[in-house]
Amino acid sequence: MSSNFADRLTAAIKQKGTPICVGLDPRIEQIPSFIRDVYLAKDGEETPAAVADTFIEFNKGIIDVVADLVPVVKPQFAFYLRYGSQGVRAFEETCAYAQQAGLIVLADAKSNDIGSTAQAYAEGFLGADAPLSCDALTVNAYLGADGIKPFTELCKKNGKGVFVLVKTSNPSSGDLQDRITDGEKMSIHELMAHFVESWGADEMGESGYSSVGAVVGATYPQEAARLREIMPHAYFLVPGYGAQGGGAADVKPCFDSQGGGALVNSSRGIIFAWEKDCKERNYQDSAREAVEEMKKDLASVL
Amino acid sequence: MSSNFADRLTAAIKQKGTPICVGLDPRIEQIPSFIRDVYLAKDGEETPAAVADTFIEFNKGIIDVVADLVPVVKPQFAFYLRYGSQGVRAFEETCAYAQQAGLIVLADAKSNDIGSTAQAYAEGFLGADAPLSCDALTVNAYLGADGIKPFTELCKKNGKGVFVLVKTSNPSSGDLQDRITDGEKMSIHELMAHFVESWGADEMGESGYSSVGAVVGATYPQEAARLREIMPHAYFLVPGYGAQGGGAADVKPCFDSQGGGALVNSSRGIIFAWEKDCKERNYQDSAREAVEEMKKDLASVL
Repeated sequence: MSSNFADRLTAAIKQKGTPICVGLDPRIEQIPSFIRDVYLAKDGEETPAAVADTFIEFNKGIIDVVADLVPVVKPQFAFYLRYGSQGVRAFEETCAYAQQAGLIVLADAKSNDIGSTAQAYAEGFLGADAPLSCDALTVNAYLGADGIKPFTELCKKNGKGVFVLVKTSNPSSGDLQDRITDGEKMSIHELMAHFVESWGADEMGESGYSSVGAVVGATYPQEAARLREIMPHAYFLVPGYGAQGGGAADVKPCFDSQGGGALVNSSRGIIFAWEKDCKERNYQDSAREAVEEMKKDLASVL
Repeated sequence: MSSNFADRLTAAIKQKGTPICVGLDPRIEQIPSFIRDVYLAKDGEETPAAVADTFIEFNKGIIDVVADLVPVVKPQFAFYLRYGSQGVRAFEETCAYAQQAGLIVLADAKSNDIGSTAQAYAEGFLGADAPLSCDALTVNAYLGADGIKPFTELCKKNGKGVFVLVKTSNPSSGDLQDRITDGEKMSIHELMAHFVESWGADEMGESGYSSVGAVVGATYPQEAARLREIMPHAYFLVPGYGAQGGGAADVKPCFDSQGGGALVNSSRGIIFAWEKDCKERNYQDSAREAVEEMKKDLASVL
């Protein structure tokens, strides 16, 4: 098998028969109380170590029931870092457990810096001996090409991937990203899309996709269609499905004509599906059902 | 004393008589071998835990000799995260030690995300019970206003500060930041400067500065002069002095007419000054001398 990240991702999506990415975004107050009670009860308060242990057990429970259904999980770094080094320990253990379960792990940390500092982030998440040990990472390119190169170089060396923020799913994303630049007569997010396409040119896989992907929110389907044209070789990571309001029809423009080239994320809608069912003991069943439903929903438009 | 961050920063700069920020960017290969040997020798390799212990001892040594000279230290998060949860433990201990030494701690993590996720970063670094416990944080505003609001709200509540990336010091910073936007006839970094000024309007201190600052590289003095005009109420965090090529004359445009309103960072030039002197046992003396030299250099133009 090719060691190129896009090829690995393509194979995993094909094998599982769906492009779903499950977001592992734990919030302590939404974790079933029978799990919380095991750890938090020890000293009656939400110490970082107790929260971290709770996150690990909850995430393992989710991973156990989604591993045969989906190709990718995406832990959101912020929810772990919120609890400092203990939280990062939970992040590490979650990534390792997911990889052992055969899942591709995409770290959502929106990392960004310059030169040797960007190199340090790249080594931390994507290095051969990386303690955080992920397969791919989201990055923010406000700093330009030399803030991205250390990441893409390591991708090439280690068969890893990056997803560059292009058009994000939030209401204010247009503040900067929709500005029209003078010379090029295109928006900043379109300009960024051209950068992404060029940064990936040297890392093409046999799948026709490169290891440099793009983050394109499900909440902006019109922009997504145009971005799909500008970036024919970039995998799209699509947040905004479900809880943020995007539906299957909204994510369709993110895919290529064969229904490939995109990965659709859902976090709360899957991992906290038990809240809707009001059955905390069955949080795993609820998560699995939510994945099955999402799979059908996406299949209806692809 | 006012609990507003800009007021605290202004008072600290006045007390120390210099606007120097010491960057705590540890690289294991540049730490004096007599410190490395204590920890790394235990098992002969660079395990994350051993590197973390080395970083803590080295940083404490630097903090001990700069605490009476400078107002601020700035640990760069990437160099710690490189070593996972153990590295983040070193970050936590470094921040706590610096605060106990009376220093203002500025975490350089260039954090960015949306809504509740940005909130999690904000609570992790700037929360009242934050395990990472810092006084201020660098943030990246590619995602627009709703990616910044969770940070500024917490700043107001807890007397903390943020520094938004405006014009960064790296060679490729112009890829995006120098693009001219159509409607406004201004560059993206100038547009960002207007955002910064407006985001800070609600958090003004008695000093005339707000708790929403800006990152403006020393390597672009012409742009800095214009940015100083656009952001009369924003503190500038100025990287790029020293190792990256910026001199005292280059940072002068970042200051206001009274020589206030900016913080100039130096990392390698101070913490690894011992390499130039070839005296590792005296790394603390070398660091102190480098600070004294920088203080004179900056005073010559202010």
